[in-house]
Amino acid sequence: MRAIVYHGPRDIRVDTVPDPSLCDPDDALVRVTRTAICGSDLHVVHGMPLPERGFALGHEFVGVVEDVGPGVRRVRKGDRVLASCTLGCARCVACRRGLASGCETTTAGGASNLFGFSCALPGGQAEAVRVPYADANLLPVPPALDDERVLFLSDILPTGHMAAELAEVGPGDVVVVFGCGPVGVFAQRCAELRGAARILAVDLDEERLARARARGCDVANPAREDVGARVLELTGGRGADAAIEAVGKPDLVAKACEVVRHGGRVSFVGVVLEPAPFFLGTLLLKNLALRSGIVSPQAHWPKLLPLIESGRLDPTEIVSHRLPLADGVRGYELFDQHADGALKVVLTP
Amino acid sequence: MRAIVYHGPRDIRVDTVPDPSLCDPDDALVRVTRTAICGSDLHVVHGMPLPERGFALGHEFVGVVEDVGPGVRRVRKGDRVLASCTLGCARCVACRRGLASGCETTTAGGASNLFGFSCALPGGQAEAVRVPYADANLLPVPPALDDERVLFLSDILPTGHMAAELAEVGPGDVVVVFGCGPVGVFAQRCAELRGAARILAVDLDEERLARARARGCDVANPAREDVGARVLELTGGRGADAAIEAVGKPDLVAKACEVVRHGGRVSFVGVVLEPAPFFLGTLLLKNLALRSGIVSPQAHWPKLLPLIESGRLDPTEIVSHRLPLADGVRGYELFDQHADGALKVVLTP
Amino acid sequence: MRAIVYHGPRDIRVDTVPDPSLCDPDDALVRVTRTAICGSDLHVVHGMPLPERGFALGHEFVGVVEDVGPGVRRVRKGDRVLASCTLGCARCVACRRGLASGCETTTAGGASNLFGFSCALPGGQAEAVRVPYADANLLPVPPALDDERVLFLSDILPTGHMAAELAEVGPGDVVVVFGCGPVGVFAQRCAELRGAARILAVDLDEERLARARARGCDVANPAREDVGARVLELTGGRGADAAIEAVGKPDLVAKACEVVRHGGRVSFVGVVLEPAPFFLGTLLLKNLALRSGIVSPQAHWPKLLPLIESGRLDPTEIVSHRLPLADGVRGYELFDQHADGALKVVLTP
Amino acid sequence: MRAIVYHGPRDIRVDTVPDPSLCDPDDALVRVTRTAICGSDLHVVHGMPLPERGFALGHEFVGVVEDVGPGVRRVRKGDRVLASCTLGCARCVACRRGLASGCETTTAGGASNLFGFSCALPGGQAEAVRVPYADANLLPVPPALDDERVLFLSDILPTGHMAAELAEVGPGDVVVVFGCGPVGVFAQRCAELRGAARILAVDLDEERLARARARGCDVANPAREDVGARVLELTGGRGADAAIEAVGKPDLVAKACEVVRHGGRVSFVGVVLEPAPFFLGTLLLKNLALRSGIVSPQAHWPKLLPLIESGRLDPTEIVSHRLPLADGVRGYELFDQHADGALKVVLTP
Repeated sequence: MRAIVYHGPRDIRVDTVPDPSLCDPDDALVRVTRTAICGSDLHVVHGMPLPERGFALGHEFVGVVEDVGPGVRRVRKGDRVLASCTLGCARCVACRRGLASGCETTTAGGASNLFGFSCALPGGQAEAVRVPYADANLLPVPPALDDERVLFLSDILPTGHMAAELAEVGPGDVVVVFGCGPVGVFAQRCAELRGAARILAVDLDEERLARARARGCDVANPAREDVGARVLELTGGRGADAAIEAVGKPDLVAKACEVVRHGGRVSFVGVVLEPAPFFLGTLLLKNLALRSGIVSPQAHWPKLLPLIESGRLDPTEIVSHRLPLADGVRGYELFDQHADGALKVVLTP
Repeated sequence: MRAIVYHGPRDIRVDTVPDPSLCDPDDALVRVTRTAICGSDLHVVHGMPLPERGFALGHEFVGVVEDVGPGVRRVRKGDRVLASCTLGCARCVACRRGLASGCETTTAGGASNLFGFSCALPGGQAEAVRVPYADANLLPVPPALDDERVLFLSDILPTGHMAAELAEVGPGDVVVVFGCGPVGVFAQRCAELRGAARILAVDLDEERLARARARGCDVANPAREDVGARVLELTGGRGADAAIEAVGKPDLVAKACEVVRHGGRVSFVGVVLEPAPFFLGTLLLKNLALRSGIVSPQAHWPKLLPLIESGRLDPTEIVSHRLPLADGVRGYELFDQHADGALKVVLTP
Repeated sequence: MRAIVYHGPRDIRVDTVPDPSLCDPDDALVRVTRTAICGSDLHVVHGMPLPERGFALGHEFVGVVEDVGPGVRRVRKGDRVLASCTLGCARCVACRRGLASGCETTTAGGASNLFGFSCALPGGQAEAVRVPYADANLLPVPPALDDERVLFLSDILPTGHMAAELAEVGPGDVVVVFGCGPVGVFAQRCAELRGAARILAVDLDEERLARARARGCDVANPAREDVGARVLELTGGRGADAAIEAVGKPDLVAKACEVVRHGGRVSFVGVVLEPAPFFLGTLLLKNLALRSGIVSPQAHWPKLLPLIESGRLDPTEIVSHRLPLADGVRGYELFDQHADGALKVVLTP
Repeated sequence: MRAIVYHGPRDIRVDTVPDPSLCDPDDALVRVTRTAICGSDLHVVHGMPLPERGFALGHEFVGVVEDVGPGVRRVRKGDRVLASCTLGCARCVACRRGLASGCETTTAGGASNLFGFSCALPGGQAEAVRVPYADANLLPVPPALDDERVLFLSDILPTGHMAAELAEVGPGDVVVVFGCGPVGVFAQRCAELRGAARILAVDLDEERLARARARGCDVANPAREDVGARVLELTGGRGADAAIEAVGKPDLVAKACEVVRHGGRVSFVGVVLEPAPFFLGTLLLKNLALRSGIVSPQAHWPKLLPLIESGRLDPTEIVSHRLPLADGVRGYELFDQHADGALKVVLTP
């Protein structure tokens, strides 16, 4: 089958790889109908080294079940389904806590349990995918919702929601969201859903800020104004109740800690993987909580799917480009460069 | 001064009572500019016996500070302020827990700590009110907000919010709200604010249901349809995540327990004061939480005021009638009979 | 095989029933090594009608895995295991919330998902049991712990812990526990574990009260003293922070609501299945939370097993009688009549 | 009066300062009967620069009320009282959230609201202290409890409890506590109170470790063994559920993050005021929560006082030395050098 294949740092290609097949009794085989490119895919393209090569990338996908093993009970051949980016087993103590990201079964021996980062678990930017522990990792899609409307339940909508949860956003809060990329947009939407009184969206890209303003956010461009001063102005000098970092830079995590009030909550979901100086004293002196994490979408589905069904959330708002899977490499480029207003690229196999 | 005075069961009159004055160092004297009639006032008019007579009724009011005692630090003469219906001292262990309703100081000896239910704490349907522990019970009103916009922070907006909190309404929930009176409307609004995917508003009054539908709710009239069946239909047979009773009838509390799913949460804020048969087994078999309470508005102000300021909440939507205080008795009648579409009556001294 | 068999109201006998065998890929077959009689079994014996007959009773058992289906991954032949009384599938939305008691799979069509209440799910007072969804319902037992030490993880220790959780017992609380039967004892132990400053154990049985006193509880016998007055005395007139009903009488649930303070929390885990008058107004006037539920032991195992392993909990303290399974009917009688100091009867097949 | 006075970096002396007197209506004047030296006092002695000089040090003290202003209602002349180290007003939004540490009134203009760090708020290592907002900051001491038994409610017992709260310690947890100084001891005690199954106490001082072992902790000396390996061994390879840093070193905060499991919680209450490299990625990859704060003892008193009264907590266990206030400088030296087994030095004026 055809797939976007990782051949090494800065080397991805649309290529032919072997068709997947059922291996374990809990497996399902999913024919992909829509997939997408995630910001974390760019880290790979930019050279974040992966130990293996030759597998399909991608961890956001929707499709149709083509076959299931004998142990699968909740999805059947022909079901339209959405996959979790993070593979859980539903049985271990981590999965029972709602933390598939730390699944003891699927990460045993240090394995990656994210689709599209290893040969053992190839990704969804492909014509088909084997999904282990299918009952635990696939969500049947209600007929009324088309593929694109649920596609982002694979990862970034739950990630945005987790960000708002980790920052304990609640009614009346003033919330600062650093970043207006796809995850930032969803963090803003979820902060709103949880009752935020005001959301200050921060980004360097004026086009993205304009869209944030259209969504009802206050906006700030740190290239033009002092975000800290702006927050104090919005909050009568107190500081924000919560802040979310959705970019992936240590200094923005520090800034997020700086702009919240005494007793504030900060979460970051940007991928921050380099050590950097960080003043822990801010947490001490201001009684802060700082949280982060890799999302476990399964735990967010029961909350987010009904909101999509009732129309309160329309995740398709972020889709800027639709391309055939065969043009996937161009999709990566557009997304990487914010070219042509690119915010989110959806691919069709 | 003039006030709506309680003279006994079914006997209220606009009358002259002595002017209030400062007694304790923590007192403030508030000249009332807007006040309102609450559903719980109707209980009094309908004959709920009160031990004393001859005092002003009313526990919802906004006004201007006329004088303060030497111990008052956070409000000053001339400040426009909103009062809490429930009087706290801010110092006892209950107040520190956010439960002014159980304030150990103001309820000592079995005293009522609600404005307008006793001679010791006359109410706000009057030209002026003495407010004990002023720092703890008055909220300065931001200049941008007119009186009516904050008036319902005295009681029923916090009550609606508390109802949604006690029912732990969260993102994606299907919530049933019994009652579309003033508190029911605010419970619906607050359920929405906390992220409910769908709200089913239940009432017998078709006009009120029409307004609920206009606010985005699903609606059901139990005179015409089976509410339980409707909930099952809305939830794929599962039952609602949460239910709120905002009417004040034991059988509706039971119904609320019936319509929620296994693990659901139920709150009631209707005034249910008669013993009645109740099947506790529903809580056992369905793992339910049932909560109620008298509101402590102070604890909700930091959440609700910013939402009014940012425009996400506009509490004036419920105001149906505006009358001079002198016509207050007619206001009670209109409200009691739902006459002329009466939903909430605001009075101006 | 031999088992204690339900033949109808007030008719249980040790009898021969067909040996269980594997049916589904997720099944395990467990050879029982220890089982016990639970208070809820007595309801059956006393005449609570069950729709079917001819099956083994019992929902508390430990044993050794004799065989597993091909879909079972976390237990193997020869493993010593403990079973949950409540059968979950680990995959549905209820199980994912930690509420196996409301499992959508195992209760589909109104089925009972408690072992020992139907022909479809015979119980553990038997030589062997088929356990569906074995990965979700069996807990491997650490070698250092003998059978009796973990046996009560099947039901009543988690039930006692759930009672303390639902009553939100926390550091410094004064907690009243109605009932010193097996569940009451564990509710007291778990209240202590969660930091209660004082626990008032209430019972009519002086012998049980003496044991409670030995465990560090304050005690009260309602036949001799006014429990409400005692609580006020213990709490400086305030009322208890939390109360737990572990008997199963509606009037004790009401009493529990009466003895807690404003803002208190009440849980009941006694089986209260008859409708009775109940004054909901207490919840309103005192801002109470009232919760109940059928336990989902799986959710409590990660908390309770380490406490047994480290020795902070020794559940064998309640065992008063050990009998062969063949003498099970006598075990029921002893337990029912509190005869010979009977508190908990353990049976060995 | 006599007091231990700050004269500049590394220069403290027992000296004469002016007697305090009532200034505001909410003030109380407290004659000190017991006071103590806190680890944070050592920072001052070691040269942490303070902007002012000439004031009494100390923020832990118990005494007798000598006089109160007209606005004080809950304490009276002659009452034995305990003071909070952190001064709140009880009225602002921070105090209402239970965060006196961020009190908007007492920290206005950047003022310190800790006793003993400025001329405006001199400390308790003195014969008498003026306590502003007396109702909010003094706790009447039950007659049955002597001064020493409640003295540490001023700061370090609540700090230890806050540490356990921020680390969300709950039943069955394995908890690592870095540090066996006074705060570490109380963090261990409070972790136990909240139901921890095992506590691993870490310190370099073998004598302190021996005491931890006697208290029921597992112990580890990082000079002799690899703490991380030890934690994996204790937890079957999973990592601890929670970790608490009670020393004040950034690398120990990092170590705390390292030893917890996926989804673990970390708090630090050691005074970490130097910027240092910190790998935020640990929080991301392991879904951690990291929290810290300055304690607001008032919020912990209702939980801790009943535990001291019932005997479950005996805070005097840490007292190693008792000296007259006149020998206070020697007390600082003993404490600083861990000389003569010094763990906590109590002073009597």
